[in-house]
Amino acid sequence: MFQAVSKTLSAASTTLVCRGVLIRCYCKKTPTKLRVSRALSGADLGASVKVQGWVRSVRPQKANLFLHVNDGSSLQPLQVVASPELNDPLLTFGSAVEVTGILKKSPHKKQSVELEADQILVVGECDPVDFPFKIKERHGLEYIRQYPHLRCRTNAFSSLLRIRSEATTAIHSYFKENDFVQIHTPIITSNDCEGAGELFQVEPSGPEIVEDEYFFSVPTFLTVSGQLHLEVISGAFSRVYTFGPTFRAENSQSRRHLAEFYMVEAEISFTQSIEDLTKVMEDMFKSATEHVLAHCVEDVDLFHKHVTPGHRDTVDAMMKNTFPVITYTEAVDILNRSSEKFASPAGWGCDLKTEHEKYLVKHCGNIPVFVTDYPYDLKPFYARDNQDHPERTAAAVDLLVPGVGELCGGSLREERLDLLRARLEEAGLEDTYSWYLDLRRFGSVPHGGFGLGFERYLQCILGVDNIKDVIPFPRFSHSCLL
Amino acid sequence: MFQAVSKTLSAASTTLVCRGVLIRCYCKKTPTKLRVSRALSGADLGASVKVQGWVRSVRPQKANLFLHVNDGSSLQPLQVVASPELNDPLLTFGSAVEVTGILKKSPHKKQSVELEADQILVVGECDPVDFPFKIKERHGLEYIRQYPHLRCRTNAFSSLLRIRSEATTAIHSYFKENDFVQIHTPIITSNDCEGAGELFQVEPSGPEIVEDEYFFSVPTFLTVSGQLHLEVISGAFSRVYTFGPTFRAENSQSRRHLAEFYMVEAEISFTQSIEDLTKVMEDMFKSATEHVLAHCVEDVDLFHKHVTPGHRDTVDAMMKNTFPVITYTEAVDILNRSSEKFASPAGWGCDLKTEHEKYLVKHCGNIPVFVTDYPYDLKPFYARDNQDHPERTAAAVDLLVPGVGELCGGSLREERLDLLRARLEEAGLEDTYSWYLDLRRFGSVPHGGFGLGFERYLQCILGVDNIKDVIPFPRFSHSCLL
Repeated sequence: MFQAVSKTLSAASTTLVCRGVLIRCYCKKTPTKLRVSRALSGADLGASVKVQGWVRSVRPQKANLFLHVNDGSSLQPLQVVASPELNDPLLTFGSAVEVTGILKKSPHKKQSVELEADQILVVGECDPVDFPFKIKERHGLEYIRQYPHLRCRTNAFSSLLRIRSEATTAIHSYFKENDFVQIHTPIITSNDCEGAGELFQVEPSGPEIVEDEYFFSVPTFLTVSGQLHLEVISGAFSRVYTFGPTFRAENSQSRRHLAEFYMVEAEISFTQSIEDLTKVMEDMFKSATEHVLAHCVEDVDLFHKHVTPGHRDTVDAMMKNTFPVITYTEAVDILNRSSEKFASPAGWGCDLKTEHEKYLVKHCGNIPVFVTDYPYDLKPFYARDNQDHPERTAAAVDLLVPGVGELCGGSLREERLDLLRARLEEAGLEDTYSWYLDLRRFGSVPHGGFGLGFERYLQCILGVDNIKDVIPFPRFSHSCLL
Repeated sequence: MFQAVSKTLSAASTTLVCRGVLIRCYCKKTPTKLRVSRALSGADLGASVKVQGWVRSVRPQKANLFLHVNDGSSLQPLQVVASPELNDPLLTFGSAVEVTGILKKSPHKKQSVELEADQILVVGECDPVDFPFKIKERHGLEYIRQYPHLRCRTNAFSSLLRIRSEATTAIHSYFKENDFVQIHTPIITSNDCEGAGELFQVEPSGPEIVEDEYFFSVPTFLTVSGQLHLEVISGAFSRVYTFGPTFRAENSQSRRHLAEFYMVEAEISFTQSIEDLTKVMEDMFKSATEHVLAHCVEDVDLFHKHVTPGHRDTVDAMMKNTFPVITYTEAVDILNRSSEKFASPAGWGCDLKTEHEKYLVKHCGNIPVFVTDYPYDLKPFYARDNQDHPERTAAAVDLLVPGVGELCGGSLREERLDLLRARLEEAGLEDTYSWYLDLRRFGSVPHGGFGLGFERYLQCILGVDNIKDVIPFPRFSHSCLL
């Protein structure tokens, strides 16, 4: 029926012929869809845009209606200014909207850009009575944790998710820039690593299972570490890493433990000493943290200002200082000389407890500290024997950090076939690990590696007390929501 | 005993006083440690370097000893040239070495750089009789699959691992550049997604389990998809994705199925139509493939030349053409009109079989093809009803690709509370999924998403027939090695 006959003056004005009558239409250009973060950047001032998101505040005033709209792309919402006529009872906190209008410089100090709306469409309602989060209220982390399917709609948890995503990127970038190859180590494994106990077993569900038969022909478990599989690959690749979920069936409700958590693990061939590992650990920590601080300024500020005020100073101190290195023996000396009353006294040959780790961190100036050369008997079969009789230590290292305690654990691996075989034979494991011995039979090299608990890392840089608040869907004993 | 008194001429020459006697030492600078890929780049010609890696060939000749050394940083090894005196019976295929010397321009056509060695140190022996891979032999993928702990030491599998790592990077980069937030969706879940059957159940191993009690208080499973959890987050973030392991307890030995495999899944809020999804699927596929082809030239060539000769043409055709889109109804018509004899005849209302998918791909010119709008009754509860009576289809889409068949599956999600509730009630699932209904009660938006099977993607671009050859540690029924 309509037929465009000519375009005149500008794309916005078109002359049409309709049943023989000339009509000039001042058609608007289709507005450009913009994400909130882009709209806020100020790059599109004057443009006709459409923004889609969720309402974070509604302020109807006499002369104007003010909205804040967010789409997850930034903590800061976009301010929408509209005529009061555009108000609608469905425009509530949490409702989903499409707003079209012109991006303008804002006269207010709080933001540099605002959207002058000529249309506001509510695409998804949100009953403010039933919705568990209320406008203008700052809900505590514990409260929002009760709503695992909705908590991403709060400022604090959406900031956490952006930080977690960016930290993940930063860690991958660090390894990429340093020539590490990423390996997807398996989740289901037939080895019960380190005989650690506290394993989850995996079998098909449902009635079709025959009792004495395994799906994989052998008992299988969820991995507790990708290390041994990384060591397989490090027999041909001198730098490899993995970043994925690991599991512990620990019956613990602690603020530092989850049944499912993420680990970053790296393995480096041709290592000379523990320093080859501590260098990578410290570099990775600092490089990732620098990236997060630079790329998530507002989101990190939310934590450093509202969740753990003052934590920024702790983070700055971590970034500024070289992480000190002490031996386990020195650590035990420090603990024994201290006036602190520990629940468990420290003694050479015993594992350091969390209270000891926290004391050592404070003793070293509340910055991360490496503890090296643990008693040989405390460490798993793969840790390299320092052969330092009579003490006998292993070339193992932990990184202890403020607030959290143990963040990383690593070691040089026993690359000497005879020593490794002797230790496995002593434990009756030489058949189970014959494939692991093969790695030493064929082109063995001095190597080592470490693992970092990713959630603990986030706790450490953000100052978050409970590990459940730094993972999207926490799993722990008696709780697996959704 | 020695004391440096002056540095003369150059850093390489130092004058020392030893017991009163002047000695001029032509001390060498400490050689720089270089990775093979860096040494091959030619940036360090003339430098004194140390290269550490594994021997891939040994050719003792009258005038010279030639070695090839590799450290996983590239497919191409570094050629080492040394005096025959430096030969050693321990210098065998697979042994680990440290070579120091000077990087020189190579007079040979095969390489531009070689290392003129003045020292070769065997750090790890490798008995050529016991080692399952033999010098100068090209072992088939099936043969090397028997040695999961050693197969990364072959050219083909080390190329695969580099490609897999690079493809992972490429996929993360695609999403990052397009403002998606990465979400770690959980591995252990209490929902038995889609009632899919074929789930793995998870419980702690060991004697301490009480029969009628669950560790998480409810039965828990390994995830078959992160979709529902991504949908949770897409209620506040308009673009999210996840890239991680997923599981199926399928009793299958097929060349396209694994019990543990990786999926890339994305969820996009404020979608208008299926095209919003197909655009992202096609863009991601092409962007990742372009990246891999550009960054893994030699590694991809190995597959395109030696594993599936001619496959490069197929890949080039995929990259050059826009992926056609046909509806399921059109697809069934095409199948019914074809002269091909299918094992199962195609009929409207039945799922497409692999043979149908492969035929459709060939029919469309052996390039990827989208099939949309499947029968409503074939799709899970979350697929959006097209309300196109009398046919009744759902807004779902699959991407079918050469050689593999189904690579991606996606759909618009039913965002309308009343329709979703009715369907869940019909299935008796409204209580189980009350949290999912909440997502529609509070600020629901039109949205959709898709999943891509990462191993199938690698099979597709490399032309690898068996899915077990594109994952480091394949898990399938009756097999969970290491």
